[in-house]
Amino acid sequence: MTVAGIPRWDAARLAAWSEPLLARVESALSGWVGVDAPVQLGDAMRYAVLDGGKRLRPLLVLAASEAVDGDADAALRAACAVELIHAYSLVHDDLPCMDNDVLRRGKPTVHVKFGEADALLAGDALQALAFELLTPDGTGISPVVQASLCRLLARAAGSQGMAGGQAIDLASVGLALSEAELRNMHRLKTGALLQGSVEMGAACGRGVAPVTLAALRDYGAAVGLAFQVVDDILDVTADSATLGKTAGKDAASDKPTYVSLLGLDGARAEARRLLAQALDALERSELADTGALRALAHMVVDRDR
Amino acid sequence: MTVAGIPRWDAARLAAWSEPLLARVESALSGWVGVDAPVQLGDAMRYAVLDGGKRLRPLLVLAASEAVDGDADAALRAACAVELIHAYSLVHDDLPCMDNDVLRRGKPTVHVKFGEADALLAGDALQALAFELLTPDGTGISPVVQASLCRLLARAAGSQGMAGGQAIDLASVGLALSEAELRNMHRLKTGALLQGSVEMGAACGRGVAPVTLAALRDYGAAVGLAFQVVDDILDVTADSATLGKTAGKDAASDKPTYVSLLGLDGARAEARRLLAQALDALERSELADTGALRALAHMVVDRDR
Repeated sequence: MTVAGIPRWDAARLAAWSEPLLARVESALSGWVGVDAPVQLGDAMRYAVLDGGKRLRPLLVLAASEAVDGDADAALRAACAVELIHAYSLVHDDLPCMDNDVLRRGKPTVHVKFGEADALLAGDALQALAFELLTPDGTGISPVVQASLCRLLARAAGSQGMAGGQAIDLASVGLALSEAELRNMHRLKTGALLQGSVEMGAACGRGVAPVTLAALRDYGAAVGLAFQVVDDILDVTADSATLGKTAGKDAASDKPTYVSLLGLDGARAEARRLLAQALDALERSELADTGALRALAHMVVDRDR
Repeated sequence: MTVAGIPRWDAARLAAWSEPLLARVESALSGWVGVDAPVQLGDAMRYAVLDGGKRLRPLLVLAASEAVDGDADAALRAACAVELIHAYSLVHDDLPCMDNDVLRRGKPTVHVKFGEADALLAGDALQALAFELLTPDGTGISPVVQASLCRLLARAAGSQGMAGGQAIDLASVGLALSEAELRNMHRLKTGALLQGSVEMGAACGRGVAPVTLAALRDYGAAVGLAFQVVDDILDVTADSATLGKTAGKDAASDKPTYVSLLGLDGARAEARRLLAQALDALERSELADTGALRALAHMVVDRDR
């Protein structure tokens, strides 16, 4: 079955689907993050994670898992784990030795509030917690699923994923990158974890067909890249208050972006192209219901922050 | 069966056991660390991990696995993974916002050589790689073992383990800790990963008796604490050249230590007491051959660096 002909979800339909899931994610994160940690560390971890962010990655995990009829408990843990990796990367990225940013989600960054040392440790502890959440003892989640989720998350987060992309980003300041080089950097820096979110959702299912897995991977790759293209556009077009972080930062720090490479119109066209690519992958997925995944792809491209 | 009456390994016997294992660990690490990573990041990761360190944690993993007749492939991966976590913690610990140390294993620290940003990212990527190594696809390692190893490592590394201990350490500078508080800090900061190494080795076995697991946990806890007591002693008694890192640092930074709390003789007595406790746990383990584990406990207490 394909999605052809099925009407696109409107904002109300997406909200009706996502809001109960987001409430479950928030509640789970609140029960898991920084609990029983030394006080200051636990506070920094909770500050970094709770009450903030669009939770796009958890929603991608949950939508993909629902589409393959995955284990809901595993998917909730995977959704939280991937958000912890994202949150730790923001904490470390904001440190003075990296982007030296003081504002995130409209609030002081973790190191501004808790000091650099605790920010560093909170990030480190959040990464460990992500893998701890994926490998619970005495639940019904199969060890095969647990191991798969760890494998996908570790690859997405590591030197051939997010951390690798950040290293390339660091090394690229002031350089003239080709579109292929820029694409490779973002495929790792932002794309790997977004694509990993979709793959982790798919890994919560049993006996998912290879053609479906491949299509979901393609969908995740396209959405991941589209996310970064739109990020680059918003860095130019939006103000700091809307973004909740410092706007115009890429241009100011002379970082190569899709806008500096393709121009604003070119970047917008690239975002539409990637959206079409994501939707096309879903058409090939042989999944019965891809409404949520389609709506999330649209949301990524049409967002204003 | 108990170890009573079996003679203690001498240095030659320990070397004959450990040298081929260490060669295998070095070779495995060299094949896994920083490979296919962006150049500068990969170099920093390899610099942080290769050609250095006593490799005590890998030896504890391998000794425990051998004692329970564990899966040798899983144990090698676990040995490398725990060393990666240790290595990343040193890289982050040496950063200016933490201990601000410039010398480690007789060489410039990672951030001195590669810059702070790449040191931060290398540490982050090493942590991710540890979990990637534990969850290989298409090997014979059972998913149950893979998930158990991830669970144990994540707990040992996180906010209720190593990272938590470091946070307490940070918050304790200049404070007068009680012996119980100091012990709790070190149980987390250094002990959790050493104990975790032993438990990970044990997790490579199948159907290991609960009494054996409990004894190995106790052994790991005692060895872990003994290691830190001896570290505190060496910080006072050894010179930087022997240690390969800056000696006298704890006293200079007004950190509470076993020596500041118990005096040098008191700390030495505490180390002997913990050694006895570790050996006693092995007596209760019902393991047929604990020669390597016994020798490692002695090595931890008798080392001079």
